[in-house]
Amino acid sequence: MPDKQMAIQRAAQGSGSGTGRPTMLAIAGDSAAGKTTLTKGLVSALGADRITAMCTDDYHRFDRDERKSKPFTPLHPDCNYLEIMEQHLQLLSMGQPILKPIYNHANGTLDRPVLVEPKEFVVVEGLFPLWSKRSRACFDATVYLDPPEEIRRAWKVQRDTAKRGYTEEQVLADLDKREPESAAYIRPQRANADIVVQFSPILSRGETAKDPLSATLLLRPTIPHPDLHPLVGDDTEEAMHLKLLRDDDGKPVDALHVHSYASEDATLKAEKELWDLMAVPEPLSDQLGLIDGERDGPLAITQLILLYHLIQAKHQ
Amino acid sequence: MPDKQMAIQRAAQGSGSGTGRPTMLAIAGDSAAGKTTLTKGLVSALGADRITAMCTDDYHRFDRDERKSKPFTPLHPDCNYLEIMEQHLQLLSMGQPILKPIYNHANGTLDRPVLVEPKEFVVVEGLFPLWSKRSRACFDATVYLDPPEEIRRAWKVQRDTAKRGYTEEQVLADLDKREPESAAYIRPQRANADIVVQFSPILSRGETAKDPLSATLLLRPTIPHPDLHPLVGDDTEEAMHLKLLRDDDGKPVDALHVHSYASEDATLKAEKELWDLMAVPEPLSDQLGLIDGERDGPLAITQLILLYHLIQAKHQ
Repeated sequence: MPDKQMAIQRAAQGSGSGTGRPTMLAIAGDSAAGKTTLTKGLVSALGADRITAMCTDDYHRFDRDERKSKPFTPLHPDCNYLEIMEQHLQLLSMGQPILKPIYNHANGTLDRPVLVEPKEFVVVEGLFPLWSKRSRACFDATVYLDPPEEIRRAWKVQRDTAKRGYTEEQVLADLDKREPESAAYIRPQRANADIVVQFSPILSRGETAKDPLSATLLLRPTIPHPDLHPLVGDDTEEAMHLKLLRDDDGKPVDALHVHSYASEDATLKAEKELWDLMAVPEPLSDQLGLIDGERDGPLAITQLILLYHLIQAKHQ
Repeated sequence: MPDKQMAIQRAAQGSGSGTGRPTMLAIAGDSAAGKTTLTKGLVSALGADRITAMCTDDYHRFDRDERKSKPFTPLHPDCNYLEIMEQHLQLLSMGQPILKPIYNHANGTLDRPVLVEPKEFVVVEGLFPLWSKRSRACFDATVYLDPPEEIRRAWKVQRDTAKRGYTEEQVLADLDKREPESAAYIRPQRANADIVVQFSPILSRGETAKDPLSATLLLRPTIPHPDLHPLVGDDTEEAMHLKLLRDDDGKPVDALHVHSYASEDATLKAEKELWDLMAVPEPLSDQLGLIDGERDGPLAITQLILLYHLIQAKHQ
């Protein structure tokens, strides 16, 4: 279905409760950009009975062995069934189930597919959800995760050596091999996101990748963001502040900076005020911001903003 | 998509060459009813570049091990992803590719899915293609294979012991176990076919399952069949004859009897006359009627009638 027809149909029929059409959020970003961590909190907050999470990296066309003889990495569109990914996103966005392929990251095989049924909400994370107009037309809100490269490289080494059976040398060589395709196919998706999220140390404070990370959320005026200006006050400024700035492409955006150096009390208070201000018709979840059981303030507030968009889109 | 909307859309937009929508034929029937043999000749005749064949038995929900703990056999709808099968048939019929699951009959596992792209023609064979209104709406012509049970049992024992690693005892026990579900879910599909095909020995001539089988094609007036009456002449009656009769349900049908006892010359001549009579705008294929390299007249003429419907539907 063409993207425009898709968008018109979704707009005409609405999404969310009662329509059989889920509210859909995309979280795009390069490998190890933090997509899964961000997604987990949304699933915990809404509950697995209300939200389906899926990963578009399962649409690999080749298994790990087959890829060895190919001239490209998994970041290349030709290495993925992107046409099927688009079809499945469209089906989900219309409330239909899909039989989703499975790429087994542990051993690099393509396994038996699984049934995925859309619930009230669907979060789609992966390398390519914002790849095409056709896929973007399926979403109510879109996010691109944009950590500094050195942070992402550190995360990828850590994860792929711990969970995917690679050596550090292999991961670093792989990152270099992937770089041209990341630049060509993954990073351009940043331009198509409603929200760009950057978890990063604050270099001007002498922080490094090992410190808790602050978050910057670039809020583009492509979806209706909550009015956050009342928050620029003494009460919350330890935890976060809002700033008008120009994005890399020169376009104006509101940047919400969430500080890692804030106390837990300050962050919790800011979360509560933010939630009240946004008047979301559901209670604030206590499941936000968890990384391996530890609570992270900037992550919690990022997830809270995304929850706002999911729940609001449902009620529009 | 509801069946009616689907049928309306297909009717409005046509199928076949130029539209991007393939002409679709369903061949339904119980396990070992001869579906694959019938399909093979159609693929050989049209060529793999023009026709895609697929089997709906790949939509098994459970692998062989998992089925052991289930209270039903693969003939039960709950043992299959029938909603996904319907969705995939609809996508194919609209000219879209699918990522089709794979059930590996050799070892009973569910393997990595494969990309299936519709070509000019799509033949869909299996246990369930005529299961629902939604699936039936996808087809231009539909066939149900209805061999006598003793013939089908003999075929199933032969195949499953030779190719699927079962003992004869296991196959016979399995047939008994499947019988109630065959009666409940598979055989009712016979009522929804445009053509019912029965390969059978002619008992009144003392033939058994080991003799070459004759074919009876019940041609229901649900699709425009060719006018075969000019064939009821001296030239072709050794090979076949047409007879008006009542089906098991009391409804009138034209029955085309194709005789296994006809000489090869008579059958070839009848094929040629039939093809000329039907004025199909393509040459008669020499790939029809092959079973393990041997030529079978009744099978050839059955495939020829189905080819007629495929090619005619494309030109309508």
